[in-house]
Amino acid sequence: MRLYSYWRSTAAYRVRIALNMKGIAYETVPVDLVADGGRQHAPDYVALNPAHLVPTLILDDGTPLTQSLAICEYLDITNPEPPLLPSDPVQRAHVKAAALVVAADIHPVNNLRVVQHLGKTFGATPEDKAEWMRHWMRTGFDALQQMVRDDTPFAFGDMPGFSDICLVAQYYNARRWDLDLTPYARLTEIEQNCLALPAFDAARPENQPDAQI
Amino acid sequence: MRLYSYWRSTAAYRVRIALNMKGIAYETVPVDLVADGGRQHAPDYVALNPAHLVPTLILDDGTPLTQSLAICEYLDITNPEPPLLPSDPVQRAHVKAAALVVAADIHPVNNLRVVQHLGKTFGATPEDKAEWMRHWMRTGFDALQQMVRDDTPFAFGDMPGFSDICLVAQYYNARRWDLDLTPYARLTEIEQNCLALPAFDAARPENQPDAQI
Repeated sequence: MRLYSYWRSTAAYRVRIALNMKGIAYETVPVDLVADGGRQHAPDYVALNPAHLVPTLILDDGTPLTQSLAICEYLDITNPEPPLLPSDPVQRAHVKAAALVVAADIHPVNNLRVVQHLGKTFGATPEDKAEWMRHWMRTGFDALQQMVRDDTPFAFGDMPGFSDICLVAQYYNARRWDLDLTPYARLTEIEQNCLALPAFDAARPENQPDAQI
Repeated sequence: MRLYSYWRSTAAYRVRIALNMKGIAYETVPVDLVADGGRQHAPDYVALNPAHLVPTLILDDGTPLTQSLAICEYLDITNPEPPLLPSDPVQRAHVKAAALVVAADIHPVNNLRVVQHLGKTFGATPEDKAEWMRHWMRTGFDALQQMVRDDTPFAFGDMPGFSDICLVAQYYNARRWDLDLTPYARLTEIEQNCLALPAFDAARPENQPDAQI
């Protein structure tokens, strides 16, 4: 498989973690979201991903899959071990809901193109943009911390899953934009337990071939 | 079951469609998102939905489920007919990806609390807010129209499913905010085919007990 990825994209980060957890080898194809006005807008990439976003996963038969949650779920169905979601429908809904607090309520509102549009439309300064991002992370994390369990190493049990993947990726942005994490001791504990695992560590932005650090 | 809903919430609209498609009777509990600064912030509601958002579905045993996509998926697993998602993993990923273009890329960026925050933070006028919403709908619909099939009554086949549900709900907002739908003839065709079905028609905002029209 080939993963079109950008080291700092938290959506791509989610898929990298899922691929690593499933033990699936893949080739990284970097898509630089900032060079040349954004290489996600290049016609050959848009042919694979009409939304002009990363990630895109190319299956071995050439089929492109887009949207990180749809990709992670595909990987979970086709490679059931270790499971990323519980089989019980109610527990599964709780894990999915926690994942969506990050993947729907926080991340899209803070996406690069959204903060770029804030600058273009409202003259938002770099500090305005950072505070915008922190605002939505606080809003989401306040909810998320009440949704996860408080008696398990990971968000919902003894193994990490869908919601842990989303949490860890979002935490990269939280640290990048200097969010005060003091109120989120439980979320930080989950992040640290995840990052101690090789599957998460290898997926970290700074460990990618296109990292610029 | 009880559904905490607001007539104009497109996330609640999705769940109403899914419940109707599955033939599940439910009681609507209106949550007025605009009265009194927003009744989604009332402590008794936040105890059910820590994210301060609608919808929340209360199961018969009292369990609250949140996040519309997680709820729709719960309903699909526990009530398999008619299916909202294909069983083939690749086809399922395509349907999910199209749904997420609406549910992640468009809707959260246009959510009521986000446009309210634009006003508070950047002094956005009502027209600024409407153009913000139209911008993200155009961006998402441009992608979505390339992702759906063009040879079927519904987005991916002869029966509506997950992505049709998200499309129809978002189209309510598109019409509300006067988006020019001329470029989206295929999406409009899918919307019209869906709204001709009783399950979709009964879920329309204007057919809800709390509609203010």
